[in-house]
Amino acid sequence: MEYVIGIDLGGTRIKAGAVSRGGKLLVWREADTEAGQGPAGIIERIGLLVEDVRRHPEVFRDRVRALGVGSPGPLDSRRGVVYFAPNLPGWRDVPLARWLERKTGLPTLVENDANVAAWGEWWLGAGRGARSLVLVTLGTGIGGGIVLEGKIFSGRDGAAGEIGHLTLLPGGRQCSCGKRGCLEAYCGAEGIVAEYRRRKPNGRLRDGRDVREICQAAAKGDQAARGALRATGEALGLGLSQVVQLLNPERIVLGGGILPAWRWFFPALRHSLRRNTLSVPLRGLRLCRVKLGNQAGVIGAAGCAWKQFETSAS
Amino acid sequence: MEYVIGIDLGGTRIKAGAVSRGGKLLVWREADTEAGQGPAGIIERIGLLVEDVRRHPEVFRDRVRALGVGSPGPLDSRRGVVYFAPNLPGWRDVPLARWLERKTGLPTLVENDANVAAWGEWWLGAGRGARSLVLVTLGTGIGGGIVLEGKIFSGRDGAAGEIGHLTLLPGGRQCSCGKRGCLEAYCGAEGIVAEYRRRKPNGRLRDGRDVREICQAAAKGDQAARGALRATGEALGLGLSQVVQLLNPERIVLGGGILPAWRWFFPALRHSLRRNTLSVPLRGLRLCRVKLGNQAGVIGAAGCAWKQFETSAS
Repeated sequence: MEYVIGIDLGGTRIKAGAVSRGGKLLVWREADTEAGQGPAGIIERIGLLVEDVRRHPEVFRDRVRALGVGSPGPLDSRRGVVYFAPNLPGWRDVPLARWLERKTGLPTLVENDANVAAWGEWWLGAGRGARSLVLVTLGTGIGGGIVLEGKIFSGRDGAAGEIGHLTLLPGGRQCSCGKRGCLEAYCGAEGIVAEYRRRKPNGRLRDGRDVREICQAAAKGDQAARGALRATGEALGLGLSQVVQLLNPERIVLGGGILPAWRWFFPALRHSLRRNTLSVPLRGLRLCRVKLGNQAGVIGAAGCAWKQFETSAS
Repeated sequence: MEYVIGIDLGGTRIKAGAVSRGGKLLVWREADTEAGQGPAGIIERIGLLVEDVRRHPEVFRDRVRALGVGSPGPLDSRRGVVYFAPNLPGWRDVPLARWLERKTGLPTLVENDANVAAWGEWWLGAGRGARSLVLVTLGTGIGGGIVLEGKIFSGRDGAAGEIGHLTLLPGGRQCSCGKRGCLEAYCGAEGIVAEYRRRKPNGRLRDGRDVREICQAAAKGDQAARGALRATGEALGLGLSQVVQLLNPERIVLGGGILPAWRWFFPALRHSLRRNTLSVPLRGLRLCRVKLGNQAGVIGAAGCAWKQFETSAS
């Protein structure tokens, strides 16, 4: 059996695993990103994780073919260069693929983190069998990945699928990106908390910005929490209506920290999506939750590398 | 030399032409659609146009290989069935390809009209050399066609690229599609006229809904006309920002009756696009005007049929 090592490079954690051609995930390793140490420190830590995975007896006995990395973007996947990464200080035109190839001796593919997660879900998760899929991850930020006909669609500059920064309301709420009225300003973690605070100025959130707490409060009957999640669903439905009308995808897969509150936001989401979308592209659309959870990035990154290096070898 | 006959089926006119493999347009014929006569009447008229083109001495001496038809949609291109067409009364699940094959004896491809126009511009017009292109046609309605990597992208149900019905303003102006706040409600012909009337309730538009007159008035210094076109550009820029952030295309091509007023709406469009879009996907974007004018549909339909029947023959 041969393996590719998948790496999911996040702002706080780096995850790694060995993935077979058929998608079997064998080893799982994690480490803190310690983003403050800059690109060189992160390369070092990824190198250690890769060595660690390679030393695993099951993997060691076989062969590691390549490395696939899901990185925050924007980036140029063809050249393996990360232009910059909002959550990784000091990252500016980092030739990540080349550095990692030198470090590990493995051919390395670098792709956008949302894209590899989308590809992972398409390959082995909630998108299996679909001809087109859009993954939307709801966390601090809102990411989007697009798979069309089995291929990641990333656009001219690798910037396609920027769902979080679709303008929902011209001149609306300030977004961290500098624009106004973005989907992320309403449905990102801060947006959800702001919505909750608006409804319950004296609510008891421990650190003032934990979406998990709002989900728990909703489950316990907190009307402000339920209202905030409904508002989130409504905004998200409007954003997804743009996705559906431009891409007419077969499947939309939702992931991220808001999933436990599915029952509180999903009815509003569906209603708002229907109200803002023509009927034809809704007919065959399936809206569902991720299946691979936090493994999607590692599995997808490895799968993309498998595909890339098999194709280029043949 | 061999030819494919391209047909552009519109609500008021049917256009036809013979197009060589290299894109040479040889004959041009038009007829009224007389949509009121229903599908059978239209099939009859297309048949007559095809015969007329075939009888042309230059074409007759050679061979007509196939028929390509750009039709209003939504439709199923694979099966050649038009589900319905808002401007063609009585059209409901019309097996257009099969009927035309029977009528003309030619293998027939049916595709959405906005899609074939986009493909035509990509093949021989303003999109030459681009890896991805979005065509936006601004008329009574607003159509959109998407070409990715040399292929029409039409989504699961042939409904991708419905740019006219992106919601710009939730709960905003009533659109003819039944939804509210659609791009078309602001930038379609009626929307532009409404915007003009709002600024100049006693303005002298002859038939009350002619965009051409508003363009002419703007050229003559009419401030209400200029203001209406600026507002149109601003709304269009917001709509295109959704397109750019989801698709990150290399080129966006604008066509339709509003083009003569380019200088009055384009600055507002560009400003609004920049204000509502992240910077990365704007870097390499080229926004330009159509080059094939009203021939795009015929040329594109023929080109798509060339591609289809050459591929399936080989």
